[in-house]
Amino acid sequence: MTSATLPLGIFSVGDAEPRVGTKVGSQVLDLAPALGDAVFDAPTLNPFLARGHEFWSSTRARLLDLVPAGLLDRYLIPLSDVQTHLPIDVADFVDFFSSLEHASNAGRILRPGEEPLKPNWRHLPVGYHGRAGTVVVDGTPIHRPRGQYKIGAGGEPQYAPTVKLDVEVELGFVVGEGSLLGSTVSVDEFEQHVFGAVLLLDWSARDIQAWEYVPLGPFLGKSFATTISPWVIPLDALSAAKIAPTPQEPMPLPHLQGTAPFSYDIALELRLNGHVVSTPEFASMYWTPAQQLAHMTSNGASLRTGDLYGTGTVSSWDESGFGSFLELTWNGERPLTLPDGTARGFLLDHDEITVSATAPAADGGLVDFGSVCGRILPATS
Amino acid sequence: MTSATLPLGIFSVGDAEPRVGTKVGSQVLDLAPALGDAVFDAPTLNPFLARGHEFWSSTRARLLDLVPAGLLDRYLIPLSDVQTHLPIDVADFVDFFSSLEHASNAGRILRPGEEPLKPNWRHLPVGYHGRAGTVVVDGTPIHRPRGQYKIGAGGEPQYAPTVKLDVEVELGFVVGEGSLLGSTVSVDEFEQHVFGAVLLLDWSARDIQAWEYVPLGPFLGKSFATTISPWVIPLDALSAAKIAPTPQEPMPLPHLQGTAPFSYDIALELRLNGHVVSTPEFASMYWTPAQQLAHMTSNGASLRTGDLYGTGTVSSWDESGFGSFLELTWNGERPLTLPDGTARGFLLDHDEITVSATAPAADGGLVDFGSVCGRILPATS
Repeated sequence: MTSATLPLGIFSVGDAEPRVGTKVGSQVLDLAPALGDAVFDAPTLNPFLARGHEFWSSTRARLLDLVPAGLLDRYLIPLSDVQTHLPIDVADFVDFFSSLEHASNAGRILRPGEEPLKPNWRHLPVGYHGRAGTVVVDGTPIHRPRGQYKIGAGGEPQYAPTVKLDVEVELGFVVGEGSLLGSTVSVDEFEQHVFGAVLLLDWSARDIQAWEYVPLGPFLGKSFATTISPWVIPLDALSAAKIAPTPQEPMPLPHLQGTAPFSYDIALELRLNGHVVSTPEFASMYWTPAQQLAHMTSNGASLRTGDLYGTGTVSSWDESGFGSFLELTWNGERPLTLPDGTARGFLLDHDEITVSATAPAADGGLVDFGSVCGRILPATS
Repeated sequence: MTSATLPLGIFSVGDAEPRVGTKVGSQVLDLAPALGDAVFDAPTLNPFLARGHEFWSSTRARLLDLVPAGLLDRYLIPLSDVQTHLPIDVADFVDFFSSLEHASNAGRILRPGEEPLKPNWRHLPVGYHGRAGTVVVDGTPIHRPRGQYKIGAGGEPQYAPTVKLDVEVELGFVVGEGSLLGSTVSVDEFEQHVFGAVLLLDWSARDIQAWEYVPLGPFLGKSFATTISPWVIPLDALSAAKIAPTPQEPMPLPHLQGTAPFSYDIALELRLNGHVVSTPEFASMYWTPAQQLAHMTSNGASLRTGDLYGTGTVSSWDESGFGSFLELTWNGERPLTLPDGTARGFLLDHDEITVSATAPAADGGLVDFGSVCGRILPATS
C-alpha cells in the first residue's frame, strides 16, 4: 500500500461534531486544526469540494509535503477511535449501466433468445436518476425491502419482502465543481469537475424491479438504499492507475470523445460473509467515467457540488468477475455454494457484503480504496 | 378568488436576501418581521417545512386571524416590487405517470397496435426519479436541449437540438416532514408529511427520450429542466377541493388503500403564447397524491424535507384536456393551428408556455394557484 492516497472523509470522535479528515495509514488526520482552514470544520466534504480543482490539488500538495515530514503528527487520531460518516451531502444521484459484460449477461438472463443489448447501448452510456436521500455510508444496516411483485408469469402481484435481494459492485464518482444550466461539460473537463471516487453498493430487489420497470425504469427496486465507502479517493491519487479505455465500436459521436481518453485500472473484490465470490476489473468498463459525465450534461443539465454517479455494475464474461448475484447465480438458477456448505441464489437475512479495491499508485505501491460493507437485516414489520 | 389561500414562497426586494413571504391578493406579506420568527428569514421554505404539520397549521391559523384584521398591513409589499425565487431546496425529485388518459394516449401514440397500458399500470403508480438540480422557478428561460436521437428507424443517431420539444402539465407535491429509512408512510399519513402543491411543467424532448429510454427509463430527455410555480399552496387551503378519487379496478393492494381516500378538484389551463390550448382536470387522475407517497415509501425509502413529486401529465380522453403536445398534436402528426395562423407540432424557439389553475375554496371563492411560465430559447452553441 502507499501512504500517499490521502483519501478524504468525515469522522467524529465521541460526541464531537463530525468534520473532515484524511486517512493516513491506520490513523486519521484532523484537517481543520492541521491546516488551519474552517472549510474542513464541516459535517460534509461539500464546502471543500465547492472550492474547486485548484484548491483540491494545492491542499493535496501541502499534505504530501507536511505529512511524510511528520509535521502534522499531533493531529493524528487512531482510526479505531473515530466514527466515519456519509462523506458528502449527495445532490443528485445517477446510476449508469456501462459494462458491456454486465449489460450482455443481464440481457441474456432477463430476455433469453433476444439480442441482449438494446440498440442505443453502444451509442451512449445508458443511465437513470436514483434516490439521493437513501445513499448511506459503509456499515449502515440494509433492511430487506418490501415491494410489489408477481410470483410467476400468471400470478397476481403481491406486496411482500423481496426474495431476490441482490447487490451490484460499482464505483461512484463525486462531482466537486458544478456547472451552469444550459452549458455542457466535455470529456476533457472530467478532472476539472470530479474530485474523486468511492466504492458503491447498488442494492437491488430484482423481483420488485422486474414488475415495476416498464416503461419508466428502475424505481423502488433500487431506491431503498445505496451504500458508499467513507473515504473518497482523489483522482489525483489515481494518476498511475490511468489506462487506455476499452476500444469502442462504433466510434462514439464527437461530444462523447476526448482528446486523450483514459479509464482506470482498479481491481475490485466482492466478498459474501468474508468469502471472496468474485474479483471484477474496472479496466474492462466500456464507457469511461469522463464519457458518463459528458453524456449527463450533454443536454445542458447542470452539475452541483455533491452530485454522485455510479458507473454501473463492474463485471466480466465469466464468473470470476461477475459483479452481481443476478450474474453469479444466473438469476438464482445456479446457486453458489459457500465454504460453510450453505447455498445462495440471492441474499439472505444476516448476509454481509463487503467490497474492497486497489489500484496502482505512483510510488509503485497500491492505492487502497478501503472497503464498503452492508449487512442484510430482516424486513421491518 | 379567495384571500384565504395564503400560499408560501420566497421573495426578495432589490438586493436584499431572499426570505419567506405569503401572497395576499396583489401583495406579499414579509413573514419574518410580521410573525417575529427567524424560520422565515431563510432563502428557502425548507426550515419552515421541517418544523412539521402542527407548525404549518398553527402558522396558518395565526395568519387567518391577523391578516383579515389588517394587523400585519405594515409588512405588506406590492407584488410588483418583489422578485420570486425557487421556493424549496429540492431534495429528491420523483415524477409519476398517473393519468389513465395520458398513459393510454401515450401508449397508443408511441406503440400503435399494442395494448396501451403496461401490465403493472393499474396495480401501482408507475414513477421514476428525475433531476432535482434542474428544477427551476417560474420564468426561468428554457434552452432547447441538444441530445442524441435517431431520425427515422433506419438512421444513425446524431447529436443535435431536439426537434420534438414538449411540455407536460402536472401538479407537484412538496414534502415537509421526512421519514426514517426502513419505515413506510401510509396513504392516511399524506397530510402529515406533505405541506402543499405547486404547478409543474415537465419539459420533455421526445426524440431524445425515445432513443435513450430502453431499458432504464427517461434521463436526458427530461433532466434539462422542470419548472415549478413560485407559490406553494398549502394542503390546508385545499380542504374544500377534496373529492372522491376516481374508482380503481382492480382494487389496489392494502398498502395503497386509505381509510378515507380523496383526490382534489383542480382545474388547469394550458396556454401557448397566450392562447388557451387545453383545460385538463386534475379530478380525473387515476392514482392520488396520497397513494403516490405511500408507494414511494413502500420499500422503506426515506422522505426528506424538500422532496418534490410530480403527479404525471394531467390529461383527458379528448383534445379539450390533453396535457402535452405529444397528445395535442398526436406526436406532431396533427399540428395545432394558432390564432396567428402559425402551426405547431412541438414547441418552437421563443414559444411561451403558461399553466394556471384554480380550485374551490372554503369560503365559496376560488383558490388561485397563480401560474407557471417558461419561454423557449434557442439551443446554446
